[in-house]
Amino acid sequence: MKVEGRWRRAIERTADGAVIVLDQTALPHRVRWLALADLADAARAIRDMIVRGAPLIGATAAYGVALALRAGISLDEACRTLAETRPTAVNLHWALTAMRPIAEVAAGDRADAAFALAARICEDEVARCEAIGEHGLAVLSRLTRDRTRPGPLRVLTHCNAGWLATVDWGTALAPIYRAHEAGIPIEVWVDETRPRNQGLLTAWELAQHGVPHTVIADNSGGHLMQHGLVDACIVGTDRTTAGGDVCNKIGTYLKALAAHDNGVPFFVAAPSPSIDWTIARGRDIPIEERSAAEVRRIAGLRDGQVTEVELIPAGTAVANPAFDVTPARLVTGLITERGLCAASRDGLRGLFPESAPPMRAETVAEEADPA
Amino acid sequence: MKVEGRWRRAIERTADGAVIVLDQTALPHRVRWLALADLADAARAIRDMIVRGAPLIGATAAYGVALALRAGISLDEACRTLAETRPTAVNLHWALTAMRPIAEVAAGDRADAAFALAARICEDEVARCEAIGEHGLAVLSRLTRDRTRPGPLRVLTHCNAGWLATVDWGTALAPIYRAHEAGIPIEVWVDETRPRNQGLLTAWELAQHGVPHTVIADNSGGHLMQHGLVDACIVGTDRTTAGGDVCNKIGTYLKALAAHDNGVPFFVAAPSPSIDWTIARGRDIPIEERSAAEVRRIAGLRDGQVTEVELIPAGTAVANPAFDVTPARLVTGLITERGLCAASRDGLRGLFPESAPPMRAETVAEEADPA
Repeated sequence: MKVEGRWRRAIERTADGAVIVLDQTALPHRVRWLALADLADAARAIRDMIVRGAPLIGATAAYGVALALRAGISLDEACRTLAETRPTAVNLHWALTAMRPIAEVAAGDRADAAFALAARICEDEVARCEAIGEHGLAVLSRLTRDRTRPGPLRVLTHCNAGWLATVDWGTALAPIYRAHEAGIPIEVWVDETRPRNQGLLTAWELAQHGVPHTVIADNSGGHLMQHGLVDACIVGTDRTTAGGDVCNKIGTYLKALAAHDNGVPFFVAAPSPSIDWTIARGRDIPIEERSAAEVRRIAGLRDGQVTEVELIPAGTAVANPAFDVTPARLVTGLITERGLCAASRDGLRGLFPESAPPMRAETVAEEADPA
Repeated sequence: MKVEGRWRRAIERTADGAVIVLDQTALPHRVRWLALADLADAARAIRDMIVRGAPLIGATAAYGVALALRAGISLDEACRTLAETRPTAVNLHWALTAMRPIAEVAAGDRADAAFALAARICEDEVARCEAIGEHGLAVLSRLTRDRTRPGPLRVLTHCNAGWLATVDWGTALAPIYRAHEAGIPIEVWVDETRPRNQGLLTAWELAQHGVPHTVIADNSGGHLMQHGLVDACIVGTDRTTAGGDVCNKIGTYLKALAAHDNGVPFFVAAPSPSIDWTIARGRDIPIEERSAAEVRRIAGLRDGQVTEVELIPAGTAVANPAFDVTPARLVTGLITERGLCAASRDGLRGLFPESAPPMRAETVAEEADPA
């Protein structure tokens, strides 16, 4: 999407073959592109969250493998180094597995083949996001046509599931960008998304691309929905179960509850790599407890400098669960690269018959439980 | 409650007759008591939120009138100056009205009478909070007796409805303090409460008094409830309608939805001055939109100094609704100074028959609407 007026991607190869990424730790205060020269740079970018978002982590890891091979480092060592950077990131391991066939290529051609395969992983990612954008545009067009209120279509989103988290377009934001480009008047409520405030990345993205938006505290969305100020919610997902439960950034569940209570449709943009066919129920997804430092400290600008302050006294206990699970019953629909479906085993099976495991009697019984 | 080991109140008269308040803009980083020497000091303390919380604002205004009369300023002028400090604060106007009978006192005795009346307003406030603590203790004792899980009783609260917001004990926190003093093992989940982070005032209060607690981002409470880690919620209220709808700090509604979805009891500590008998439905309460600066900027410690940073770029639109309304259907019970009651017209009428307006047919019909 656009950055300072030019169309960019969150990870790019330059004309001279370098791999560059947008430094997301500097946003929204600074636009800074960093060159990844070698394996160590790629590993550091993932570990220090210079890049973030499951698909972008995968893409960066793929280029990390290529950079390693170019420097004569073995495929095994490259994968081991990269796998340790964010041990719980599903896409990281998916991308490293996708790079494995490089081992079959003749040694002298491996680096070139790895760069080509990494580029293809990126293109596949972008194609999935574009398709989600297309199907989501149909959803937003229908909502725009059917609504009775005047003014722009107002969509609430949580966290950042934009092009910064993918490579281009994003997942939850792809339909919004497509609607904006299609001339549908659209405005976005952007949840701040404490503790890491990824909502500010969303606001930055939307501002760069010219999509009207308003940042709100995470506490505000329910009130806005009660007062008819939200026409739809669209969020991303870190993992969607085979039964349609959605694991996403902490706080997503609260917005889904409010949407349900107020008759606001709640959509989840779910590319197929995020679907975990091995888990039926959201309650079985382990939830990462992240560092208390994310809650205790926050960075902002002071006198033009990015400055970190301590919000919470050192002696105070802090808990920081990073994700929550929205039960399928609160999800209006999943927007996948193959189209819209119900958040249910049947819905997902209909779009991805080759991936869905066969249904067993006991699985059906389990699913009858509230998630 | 206790501050640095000594039992204190949020507003006090010292032995030499001065009025002192705890500076809440310095908390949780600094404990600083400020003397209010005159009307201007009292007005500034309210306007600049050195004191906050509806009951404490009322108490400070009452002392402000007394300070003004001692300096020869007229009652009318004192009330006018104080009324302008926080125009939407209901308790401020209630307290100024309560000071009006001072006009009947002989001119030479007015200042002394005003100090005495202000002291009585404070004592009445403390007595209400103590009674709420007593009735809330019965609720928490029953929850402790009936629960099947081992370990402490875990209570979630939002914002600060503690002694800092009242004069002593608090409303939502009074039952927690009483339970702690009664030897019930209790732990508190403290919502950060963006944008003003009043949760840090709650954490500070609880730490000073020795009550175990953990600060969480506002996004986390739903996840904790899904995993059985919350036994009850208790919050305060800025205004409760005659039908039992609860207007409280933005975000309260989201926690009430999550509590309802997970079978967690959701209590509201509601002293009778917070009940607005003239409004039946929460949707009729006007909601204050506060300054965007509260969302944009945040203060924390850096190198030992309280430092403010800009979180959100200046060009980004921000909305900041300060309160939301939790419909009565999501409230398990109101804890008032006269006991526990259902969040309904009948429930409130049972405890406050002298205050409840007569029921009319159209009111009943209106209440049948979902709030």
